[in-house]
Amino acid sequence: MQQIIFQPIGMIRTPFQTCEGMPIQPRGARSNEGQVVLDTTFAEGLNDIDGFSHLILIYHFHKSEGYRLTVKPFLDDRDRGVFATRAPRRPNAVGLSVVSLLGRQGHVLRVGDIDVVDRTPLLDIKPFVPAFDAPVATAIGWLDGKAEQFRVKRADDRFSGR
Amino acid sequence: MQQIIFQPIGMIRTPFQTCEGMPIQPRGARSNEGQVVLDTTFAEGLNDIDGFSHLILIYHFHKSEGYRLTVKPFLDDRDRGVFATRAPRRPNAVGLSVVSLLGRQGHVLRVGDIDVVDRTPLLDIKPFVPAFDAPVATAIGWLDGKAEQFRVKRADDRFSGR
Repeated sequence: MQQIIFQPIGMIRTPFQTCEGMPIQPRGARSNEGQVVLDTTFAEGLNDIDGFSHLILIYHFHKSEGYRLTVKPFLDDRDRGVFATRAPRRPNAVGLSVVSLLGRQGHVLRVGDIDVVDRTPLLDIKPFVPAFDAPVATAIGWLDGKAEQFRVKRADDRFSGR
Repeated sequence: MQQIIFQPIGMIRTPFQTCEGMPIQPRGARSNEGQVVLDTTFAEGLNDIDGFSHLILIYHFHKSEGYRLTVKPFLDDRDRGVFATRAPRRPNAVGLSVVSLLGRQGHVLRVGDIDVVDRTPLLDIKPFVPAFDAPVATAIGWLDGKAEQFRVKRADDRFSGR
């Protein structure tokens, strides 16, 4: 199959220098702030973004190496198919986080609820729109009863090694 | 900056042979079904996915050519920053749709609410988890009062040309 080549449009700056101790998901990082620093050449693309309370960030799990088709997720005790998890080690190491937008200054966005390692390469920013992005989910599979725990738990070494 | 190279893990099959007439967003495609056809080598990665009612599909806008930093979005009458829109012509042509999962058979998922053109290259599948992905958004900027219209409107020729 064909290759698809992307280039980062900027990077995500966070207080998390390593993956250990990092929140697992942005809802688990309610008090954690970071910055989305776009290449200045893309700054105009941020026009009108300050009207949105939340954004979807799509980025590269640049610390992730290799993948397995089944993984033992954080907070779980058995192997699950990788596409039923949010593990960073996936066939295409693409990550997604919904963050709150706290402010914009030129090519820099201040965001809350951030959960990625510092200097994560950013691929895209999209406005979060509940009518598009937030259906009423009736089932969350193996995460049932576990998802809320991500608010307090912290990441382990899931990124490194195989 | 570095290049990031992804390879499709499969393709999304839909009834939409061209972009015209296609629903703009999956919530606008409530009755539209499609299939996510993974390469068979990745089938094991779908284990446990049938416990989830909704999935996030990340894909390549393969029909999208070039981009502008400001675009006049569908349903709007003035230019907006591209990152404040869901327009397919963006610096990295990466798309995201939340779909409902109707069933799995081996390496094939049957999904609802699909809004992409047939044979769209798939990059990733993630489980949709409200605790991670569905914050209570308090503002949707220029889409205020417009987002619901995406349920009935259809795409125009935003993909082609510049």
